[in-house]
Amino acid sequence: MPRAVAGPEIERLIQLLARLPGLGPRSARRAALHLIRKKDQLLMPLAAAFSEASTSVKVCTSCGSVDTSDPCAICSDQGRDNSVIVVVEDVADLWALERAEAVGGRYHVLGGTLSALDGRGPDDLNIAKLVERASDERVTEVILALNATVEGQTTAHYLTDVLARAGVKVTRLAHGVPVGGELDYLDEGTLSAAIRQRTPF
Amino acid sequence: MPRAVAGPEIERLIQLLARLPGLGPRSARRAALHLIRKKDQLLMPLAAAFSEASTSVKVCTSCGSVDTSDPCAICSDQGRDNSVIVVVEDVADLWALERAEAVGGRYHVLGGTLSALDGRGPDDLNIAKLVERASDERVTEVILALNATVEGQTTAHYLTDVLARAGVKVTRLAHGVPVGGELDYLDEGTLSAAIRQRTPF
Repeated sequence: MPRAVAGPEIERLIQLLARLPGLGPRSARRAALHLIRKKDQLLMPLAAAFSEASTSVKVCTSCGSVDTSDPCAICSDQGRDNSVIVVVEDVADLWALERAEAVGGRYHVLGGTLSALDGRGPDDLNIAKLVERASDERVTEVILALNATVEGQTTAHYLTDVLARAGVKVTRLAHGVPVGGELDYLDEGTLSAAIRQRTPF
Repeated sequence: MPRAVAGPEIERLIQLLARLPGLGPRSARRAALHLIRKKDQLLMPLAAAFSEASTSVKVCTSCGSVDTSDPCAICSDQGRDNSVIVVVEDVADLWALERAEAVGGRYHVLGGTLSALDGRGPDDLNIAKLVERASDERVTEVILALNATVEGQTTAHYLTDVLARAGVKVTRLAHGVPVGGELDYLDEGTLSAAIRQRTPF
């Protein structure tokens, strides 16, 4: 147990900050000091934003995303295409696709992947609700936007089986060369996928 | 302006988190999502710790450090040596020395270094108060624990001149090989300082 460097309120602040992803003990101390120095511009607004978020943030009962309203802004947006559902593992993936402005339809957040190692089966994921939504007659396509990892692809195969009963077309993201990517630095799997799934020029 | 990925409360949380040192826009989003997921264990305690800190943290009028009391815990600690003052640039340096348990005396936080480039002169630093404290007859030594940078050493030279009038011994940190350091990886300046200031074995 190292010697406490400041009063218990500051120590507690540092300990809590160190539990954020991307911050270790040292950077948590730097962040705490920065917050204390910028009390009016940063510490007090963050305190307000944190307590605001802790009361207002909800999980969307339709798609499983997080937002300050339920159903979330995307589920209640009348301008979106009702025929397409994009399935993602995590809210962070949904946010990434939204930033890319790549999706005109709806989303469904699984909350993880199937994993025998971690003991996560189909009942631990938001799958029953997905099948229910996909069975809606307006839905014609489900796009599986899962990570290109072993768990992601296992989950994709499982979902393809389950969704076959719902009578929708199931597609997945294209594999290939990332935009801006140099061939020399890509792995063999990506390169052979890019050759196999080549498109007319 | 990228498309907003979530409600305004969540967007605001992300924007404020991105202003912490060590967090960029992407890691701020990850941190926000982590906070939202761990609402009871992390978001709410942090909200409480932030508002607690924003009301209770003060700058010590004696040494310039930050703490929840004024004078701070170190200045009001009766068990510390009154004859030594260790001068540091920043509260983070004070915390680092305290963690090393290297100092039995008091501290003085300058709040930066002299810098012609950034237009910081002696009046912008906590120097007048240092001279006042050093003039106390109980104080016999001032240790300059400033960074080994050009600005740090310029400031050390200036302080040596100013403190000569106070009639105290002025010392500085030893330069040399860091503990655990390998000679092959050290710069020439450090190596020649380590040779010049060699000590008997």
